[in-house]
Amino acid sequence: MLGGYCGKILWVDLTSRKWRTEDVTLEMARKWIGGSGWAAAIVPKMVQASTDPLGPENILGFFTGPLTGTIVPSSGRHCVAAKSPLTGIWGEASVGGSWGKALKHAGYDALILTGQASEPVYLWINEDTVEIRPAGSLWGLDTYEVEEAIRKRTHPRAEVCAIGPAGERMARIAGLFTDGQEGRAAARCGLGAVAGSKKVKAIAVYGKKAPALADKEGLLKSIKAVLPTIKERTKGQTNFGTAGLVLPCQQLGDFPVKNWTQGSWEEGAQKISGVQLAEKYLTGRFHCASCPIGCGRRIAITEGPYSGVSGGGPEYETLGLFGGSCMIDDLAAICYANELCNRYGIDTIEAGNLVAFSMEAYEKGIISKEDTGGREIKWGDPDTLIGLIKEMGEGRGFGAILAEGFPALAQRYGDAVQEMGITVKGLSFPAHEPRAYNSIAVGYATANRGACHLEAFSHTFERNLAMPDLGIDQPLDRFSSEGKGVMVAKAQNLMMVFDSIAACKFLLFGGINPTILSEWLTMATGIVWNAEELVQCGERIFNKKRLYNVECGITRNDDTLPERILRQPRGSGGAATNLPPLEAMLDEYYAFRGWDANGIPTEAKLRELELL
Amino acid sequence: MLGGYCGKILWVDLTSRKWRTEDVTLEMARKWIGGSGWAAAIVPKMVQASTDPLGPENILGFFTGPLTGTIVPSSGRHCVAAKSPLTGIWGEASVGGSWGKALKHAGYDALILTGQASEPVYLWINEDTVEIRPAGSLWGLDTYEVEEAIRKRTHPRAEVCAIGPAGERMARIAGLFTDGQEGRAAARCGLGAVAGSKKVKAIAVYGKKAPALADKEGLLKSIKAVLPTIKERTKGQTNFGTAGLVLPCQQLGDFPVKNWTQGSWEEGAQKISGVQLAEKYLTGRFHCASCPIGCGRRIAITEGPYSGVSGGGPEYETLGLFGGSCMIDDLAAICYANELCNRYGIDTIEAGNLVAFSMEAYEKGIISKEDTGGREIKWGDPDTLIGLIKEMGEGRGFGAILAEGFPALAQRYGDAVQEMGITVKGLSFPAHEPRAYNSIAVGYATANRGACHLEAFSHTFERNLAMPDLGIDQPLDRFSSEGKGVMVAKAQNLMMVFDSIAACKFLLFGGINPTILSEWLTMATGIVWNAEELVQCGERIFNKKRLYNVECGITRNDDTLPERILRQPRGSGGAATNLPPLEAMLDEYYAFRGWDANGIPTEAKLRELELL
Repeated sequence: MLGGYCGKILWVDLTSRKWRTEDVTLEMARKWIGGSGWAAAIVPKMVQASTDPLGPENILGFFTGPLTGTIVPSSGRHCVAAKSPLTGIWGEASVGGSWGKALKHAGYDALILTGQASEPVYLWINEDTVEIRPAGSLWGLDTYEVEEAIRKRTHPRAEVCAIGPAGERMARIAGLFTDGQEGRAAARCGLGAVAGSKKVKAIAVYGKKAPALADKEGLLKSIKAVLPTIKERTKGQTNFGTAGLVLPCQQLGDFPVKNWTQGSWEEGAQKISGVQLAEKYLTGRFHCASCPIGCGRRIAITEGPYSGVSGGGPEYETLGLFGGSCMIDDLAAICYANELCNRYGIDTIEAGNLVAFSMEAYEKGIISKEDTGGREIKWGDPDTLIGLIKEMGEGRGFGAILAEGFPALAQRYGDAVQEMGITVKGLSFPAHEPRAYNSIAVGYATANRGACHLEAFSHTFERNLAMPDLGIDQPLDRFSSEGKGVMVAKAQNLMMVFDSIAACKFLLFGGINPTILSEWLTMATGIVWNAEELVQCGERIFNKKRLYNVECGITRNDDTLPERILRQPRGSGGAATNLPPLEAMLDEYYAFRGWDANGIPTEAKLRELELL
Repeated sequence: MLGGYCGKILWVDLTSRKWRTEDVTLEMARKWIGGSGWAAAIVPKMVQASTDPLGPENILGFFTGPLTGTIVPSSGRHCVAAKSPLTGIWGEASVGGSWGKALKHAGYDALILTGQASEPVYLWINEDTVEIRPAGSLWGLDTYEVEEAIRKRTHPRAEVCAIGPAGERMARIAGLFTDGQEGRAAARCGLGAVAGSKKVKAIAVYGKKAPALADKEGLLKSIKAVLPTIKERTKGQTNFGTAGLVLPCQQLGDFPVKNWTQGSWEEGAQKISGVQLAEKYLTGRFHCASCPIGCGRRIAITEGPYSGVSGGGPEYETLGLFGGSCMIDDLAAICYANELCNRYGIDTIEAGNLVAFSMEAYEKGIISKEDTGGREIKWGDPDTLIGLIKEMGEGRGFGAILAEGFPALAQRYGDAVQEMGITVKGLSFPAHEPRAYNSIAVGYATANRGACHLEAFSHTFERNLAMPDLGIDQPLDRFSSEGKGVMVAKAQNLMMVFDSIAACKFLLFGGINPTILSEWLTMATGIVWNAEELVQCGERIFNKKRLYNVECGITRNDDTLPERILRQPRGSGGAATNLPPLEAMLDEYYAFRGWDANGIPTEAKLRELELL
């Protein structure tokens, strides 16, 4: 081995059309790991709190982790980050697929776009060749089409990250999509709009520089030892994808129903479950790079009104929000709506919440036919869902208004959004219920990007997982509140590690813990890690993002949940009566975090984390 | 641990009086280790081959290694580097003492001076406080005096690196001196003149930031395991210092006698041996930072004409060149001459060779009383030695001419210097004989800074040491030539590692090998190393310096030795008849190095070492 893992960032300035590479510092590698950690180190340094997210001063960063593109299982992820145009605060999205691996194999750990192109462009990164090419003729293509078109112009095995028409128009619910019709999405926080603002239609990457491993044999041996357990314990994900969660989550009251107003939807869930998906439409599995699980679904619908739908199948989140929250039990319709979102380049979580919101607001007369351009909006109606998604994707009618996201809707409809727009800090709820797991309440309230189940992923420690490395010796009771503030903070710190190295959190189900991660990281990079310092890095990273949000004006007032979640028991289902006692848990959370009562990190904590 | 070893360089620009810090890249840490390796990475990038070494475009770098200032035994060294004003090529000097440790404990791995001050200054570096202070009133003080004066102005335990009057006047044989009257010297290559050209009288450092160790317990355990062996096998150095080498080296014909013309000097050597020094003048030992050996001598002369001499005692090199080469057997006189050199800030190796040259040239009538300003120059005469050193130090008379070094003398005396000036590439021979060890011939001819016994330290593998890590399974016959080219190249690669990490090569005597070094390095820094990649780094570092020399015009023609060494057997002593077959060994050396027949590294080799 010569050199080994060194960490290289490719900076591309779209305004000047110049690029350069940066070798990262040893301090950067140690203090910030990679992936989401590098995003936390770089975005706040480059983008002021006052910056217009859609202006040339925002940056758009793609950060792989030190394990991305290696032989480590489920390591094929990367983080995309910018100031969010949807929420105006910390913006980040994580995505699997093969694009991150390809960037790493092209020789770069990260790609950061600055400035703004004057005309549509796409980037072609082939190891030492970095080109900014015109994309005028690609503008308007959907994400499936653009991959095909760009592969013809570059390399047949180039990996393409692209925006669809929604991103081009800077719709604030637009994401960045990879892997063509597999529909892997860095969907959240409207980062597709940032790409659109920079006039970047796509980024194609290819390379053959597999990362040097400091101790390949040791790594292989360690992986082999745990691989059977990972495979065994993730069989559900392998067989049914995340769609397999529909039935258990519904049963537990963890499933959104009728825009977060009801507690159960048994019959509907049966119709859109992972089993149904597998039996009716499944044609194969999709594995992200290096992943033994393969939770991605490949589907094809060959008959009925949605015949012709083909490609990536809907995830649990999509099923929860298009299905339960909109009360739509037509699985084929959901598959079609999912494909539309992928093609247009739209976040299905935002879309599902926005449509459910519209259904409720329309029913209550807050939105009228005048607003919708004559469209009738009905609960459980596939045509409503599909129609509104087409409008969002194409920037037409009422959908164009929805596609600006809840913060913009709040300007227009005021209190109605306050009541029915189910977000934290402007980011819509994913399909997990804070009333079903008390820790989710704290997790959503404090997640740096807004309502996010993956920044803490804490409900997993209220269900069946323990994590002795973090002092979580056994799973906690989901309806208890004591200790939940502490547990969520610890879980967030650990999840920052996953997002930074960057690996899939499903490894948790296979028994992977910080100790194993630190061993893999050491053997892969040749930088010595241990579990404790890895988790402390996670804490540093979480706090750094919080500091950015504090600069953007975030305080305790924003660390809250919609009234509906805090005050309205649902009365049915697996969590019929529970309401999360957020403020008490938040007090505990702040105290453990070393934040003051207003949610601001104290100087002592910042000093401890070397953030001062 | 938070962060651990991260690598920080302090840049001080003397012209603008501004300073900044740089966090080194992970690539820098991996490819270039530290110390001499960082020098190799940085000096050629900053200083063009055409740059005037005494102009503002030269830089002066002080590079500790990742082990400097740690608990690793004998790790208290650092490297000083610049373009050499003496030789006009790669300039480097290594020094022990406590200054490197102090710089590290002030929070910096390296200090690099750029530009030129307009008035005399000294630097005061106290952790985050970096000051460029006026040194007008310190100008003219000798190196012992200036330490005392600066400690009064800064901190009583500040470590001071200073030039004496010779460096102030930019004498090209001036060095940089640390540890006050202990007389630790980065003496070679005239780097004191570079400090003088920048008007930097001294650099005082102090700090309490002991470097974080990634695995302190493991490191302590590993050190404890080998410490008894180190102590046992370096007893000679502990008891008699490097002066203890006088007798064995004389016996082996490894000792310079009468300007490299004779093979033995038995009676004289007896009078100036380490035993004599210990019995007559020794008052104590001096240990460089973290060193269990303590080869430094503390002496005091309390009677006779040199009564009052006190402080660091002469090293083997000084005894060889002031004693054997000048035929001076008055140990007290040598101690005094040594003290004078330390105070004036002069390299004793250059001074000894220059005086011996003068003695021979005067005897042969090439230099006359006219040249010497009336001074009679006589073999074996202490007054000649002392008188000329005073002139060198004070810039007076014939000594002022000598103090410009052999390359300048060659301009003046032409062929005489060609014949009697015993240098490679303008740097004088240290007190080891290429005719006594064939490997020394290759080592001197190819050392990047010119005649240097420490860039290869290869005679140790022709005497009593093996090094299986390098494929040197047993010590080689010193008079054989086959395999010597290969052995020297390997030894140089290993010595680059010692100079980069930065530790004392005397550890070799204690059985320390690349395997142990790589373990220590891993446990100290938290960057994983193994022996093979460590030695390959050494190879990269050696080649990088060679590339710089090639830019400066060095080719095979310069990889040679004086005719005297190549063609004149000495006829007596332990190596009476041997002449090193340099060209054949050089062919082998170039072939093994992957250099072409003219001594230029091939593209394939540079690619292999990631130098292209």
